[in-house]
Amino acid sequence: MNWRAQLENYLHPHRARVDEALDQYLSGNPPMPRVVCEAMRYATLGAGKRLRPILCIAAAEALGGKAEQVLPTACALELIHAFSLVHDDLPAMDNDHLRRGQPTVWVKYGEAMAILAGDALFAKAFELIAEQARFSSPERVVQTLRLIAESSGVRGMCGGQVEDILNEGQVVSEATLRFIHAHKTGALIRASVLAGAILTGADEPRQTALDAYSRALGLAFQITDDILDETASTEQIGKPAGSDRARRKATYAALFGVETARAHAQQALQDALSALQAFDERADPLRWLAHYAVEREK
Amino acid sequence: MNWRAQLENYLHPHRARVDEALDQYLSGNPPMPRVVCEAMRYATLGAGKRLRPILCIAAAEALGGKAEQVLPTACALELIHAFSLVHDDLPAMDNDHLRRGQPTVWVKYGEAMAILAGDALFAKAFELIAEQARFSSPERVVQTLRLIAESSGVRGMCGGQVEDILNEGQVVSEATLRFIHAHKTGALIRASVLAGAILTGADEPRQTALDAYSRALGLAFQITDDILDETASTEQIGKPAGSDRARRKATYAALFGVETARAHAQQALQDALSALQAFDERADPLRWLAHYAVEREK
Repeated sequence: MNWRAQLENYLHPHRARVDEALDQYLSGNPPMPRVVCEAMRYATLGAGKRLRPILCIAAAEALGGKAEQVLPTACALELIHAFSLVHDDLPAMDNDHLRRGQPTVWVKYGEAMAILAGDALFAKAFELIAEQARFSSPERVVQTLRLIAESSGVRGMCGGQVEDILNEGQVVSEATLRFIHAHKTGALIRASVLAGAILTGADEPRQTALDAYSRALGLAFQITDDILDETASTEQIGKPAGSDRARRKATYAALFGVETARAHAQQALQDALSALQAFDERADPLRWLAHYAVEREK
Repeated sequence: MNWRAQLENYLHPHRARVDEALDQYLSGNPPMPRVVCEAMRYATLGAGKRLRPILCIAAAEALGGKAEQVLPTACALELIHAFSLVHDDLPAMDNDHLRRGQPTVWVKYGEAMAILAGDALFAKAFELIAEQARFSSPERVVQTLRLIAESSGVRGMCGGQVEDILNEGQVVSEATLRFIHAHKTGALIRASVLAGAILTGADEPRQTALDAYSRALGLAFQITDDILDETASTEQIGKPAGSDRARRKATYAALFGVETARAHAQQALQDALSALQAFDERADPLRWLAHYAVEREK
């Protein structure tokens, strides 16, 4: 079997498990205002690769852990991703109307509700990190909390998004482009892998290896996103093709051209695979995901 | 000395300590985008009662704890309060231009930066909760994390804000009004008191008493805010007087009239003081704060 079929076999049950857990964690109780819970579910459930929870689970499994034992944190990472998309799509930010082929949260529920649903998803993520204490020692939970909070904030995802907005419509240097992506998307991908590792008690060398893997993987995903934005059809990627370039967002494809960007993505794939050299076949899903990052079509 | 002078003597050094810690926690390092760090500082430092950190510290001290030992969590609570104000002031929400007599964050830095600065403050708050592990056992930190995350989210602050927005311009029932305020402002006030208690190892009866105190205190603050919005001058409260009523926000003063609202505030003060009956003089700052909630002029 090639990596594509193996990955599909791996993803199917894991995504189903994550989706079931997300559905349960986002079930409302009567006193909550119903509409914001509905908006939170709309933002999170349905389509979506569940990349971050899968990475957290795959990292745990690469070290001999079990998916069930990292599920609250895995779901927390998906909620943070969903929160960031809801806020990024707002009129004052990227002003996006479509996401995964569906109206964005602010289009469907209004701006105020989108701001609050995003905030509430972010808060819920930290509730789930506390929930992780059902399966892990409080020491490891606190370590994970620190990692995920830092990766979400000004030294991570938010910082990258700020830099992206500040540079919109400008020609950016390679250094700025790398800064933006290492923070805007890279930080949470890295946190997903490392959270799975920390919660499974990875030793220092394993954490260092997985850190290197996650950085290369994040880069591979971002470069490939940029290439797909240039080359894929609107139908394939679920938002208007070329929309990032049209908005003059900083992209690898715009900076280097599509061919050179493809070579960089291949290099990132090789770096990700090399970082996993000391791991046995339990790390294969992480390897397939690295292939997927670069060789997917949407 | 009356409570007013005693409270002033108590608040002065504690506010200075909190302000110093906030200033330090919000000092940027070079790789961060400077403007968002500036917006985060603008939203947090300067004027502000520091009510939530002071409550956290005062609850810890009422149980024999020390301010230094709860400072990261106390500051986290202030960051969550600041985050909520930044988002509440946005054009899509309350569209406020002035806050504490100064331009609101979105007026000064633009909407996109205000959304992101709010998000980043919220993330930073959870970093500080992880930082609390320097002084407290990880078990207590995780318990505090759960409390604060729940109080900030859809079952707390965000939920109250959603309900407030959904009911804007409508005549609301007393039940809805109480729901809104118990969640929008009450939940984080309660979390502030209980966080100080949990981190100081309060037993069950003490936690129950402080829970009752914090609910009565939150109510006293909110009713008095509503009365002051009706009766105080713009200069006194730092935003246009009567602005909540003009926007037809749900307020106690509008629902009951100012005189009845005053009687409810007095009752809440008595409830807060009764809840502290079993505490010795180390709980006096909590008592003075209850007086302050009702008898302040702005």
